[in-house]
Amino acid sequence: MPKTPAGPELDQLISLLAKLPGLGPRSAKRAALHLLKKREGLMLPLSTALVEAADKVTACSVCGNWDSVDPCAICANDERDTGIICVVQEVADLWALERAGAHKGHYHVLGGVISPLDGVGPDDLNIGSLAQRASAGNVSEVILATSATVDGQTTAHYVTERLIGTSVAVTRLSQGVPVGGELDYLDEGTLAAAMKARRPF
Amino acid sequence: MPKTPAGPELDQLISLLAKLPGLGPRSAKRAALHLLKKREGLMLPLSTALVEAADKVTACSVCGNWDSVDPCAICANDERDTGIICVVQEVADLWALERAGAHKGHYHVLGGVISPLDGVGPDDLNIGSLAQRASAGNVSEVILATSATVDGQTTAHYVTERLIGTSVAVTRLSQGVPVGGELDYLDEGTLAAAMKARRPF
Repeated sequence: MPKTPAGPELDQLISLLAKLPGLGPRSAKRAALHLLKKREGLMLPLSTALVEAADKVTACSVCGNWDSVDPCAICANDERDTGIICVVQEVADLWALERAGAHKGHYHVLGGVISPLDGVGPDDLNIGSLAQRASAGNVSEVILATSATVDGQTTAHYVTERLIGTSVAVTRLSQGVPVGGELDYLDEGTLAAAMKARRPF
Repeated sequence: MPKTPAGPELDQLISLLAKLPGLGPRSAKRAALHLLKKREGLMLPLSTALVEAADKVTACSVCGNWDSVDPCAICANDERDTGIICVVQEVADLWALERAGAHKGHYHVLGGVISPLDGVGPDDLNIGSLAQRASAGNVSEVILATSATVDGQTTAHYVTERLIGTSVAVTRLSQGVPVGGELDYLDEGTLAAAMKARRPF
């Protein structure tokens, strides 16, 4: 990235901002200028918030979710169903399901997917702790909510094999036409899956 | 913005990140998760960089550019032509011109444009200091590089009036077809301006 004509401190800030997903070199410059205009209202509070979050937010020792308490607020919530565990790849996926209000049980965050090309094997993911939780007794169902990608499905198959021998039912999210989706714009794979999994009207 | 299920520290971080230009609520969440994965490499260095830049970077007392030294590196550079001042709206515009290597003189950053609708009048901009610099003696030319918008041009006209009585020549950037621009995709205003300002081939 070309240097700004504005000194090493600003260069450093811009090069770090540019590493955030969604910000490129040019938008990082815009963000830096915006921050300099709002030092008291945004720049210094953001610095504090970064340190606070880095200090307080840890992975939940039960499910792998991020929270400033351990166990996390979801694991500690008495009103949630401890018998159903929804397995997701990343914390972002957990947030997406919570946003949808689609799951009232617990979660388990794998921390990624099995991906030989990227050098990620089963041992790099939180699969062992899932098997432990599943065999602990009161768990009746494990819902696999990994992505519908090759790596996501490979991971789902691997997790299923690891759960053989436990008494839990293993399910996965249904595949089909997204709500609001027009058939004309859907790929063939989705249409075929939706046709195959058709249900009585 | 809906709360994340991850505690007040992360909520605070996300809501501050979402105030950056180019990041919305959802990309702020992605950025926060990315930061949490790179605490030592990105999150804490970013926090430090924010404090450092907020502490060190100030507006140049001569031209209004941002730098960690005052006068800024451009004003302090002996090799630049002190006789030509290029007037820009914002520091970002100065950076754009420097990126193009298009100007070897000095700059003057107005800090915005005259915009009655937004309550910005001439006294809110660094126009008085420009008039002082222009009448200081060795300045021969003031180049107006405000945006080709209504507010930008209004501001340019106002600055020109303020410079009446000084001996400087006031010029502005040419308008016309952008380099690489296809005529078919250009607006009528640009085409009319390019035709009117046609030059011998």
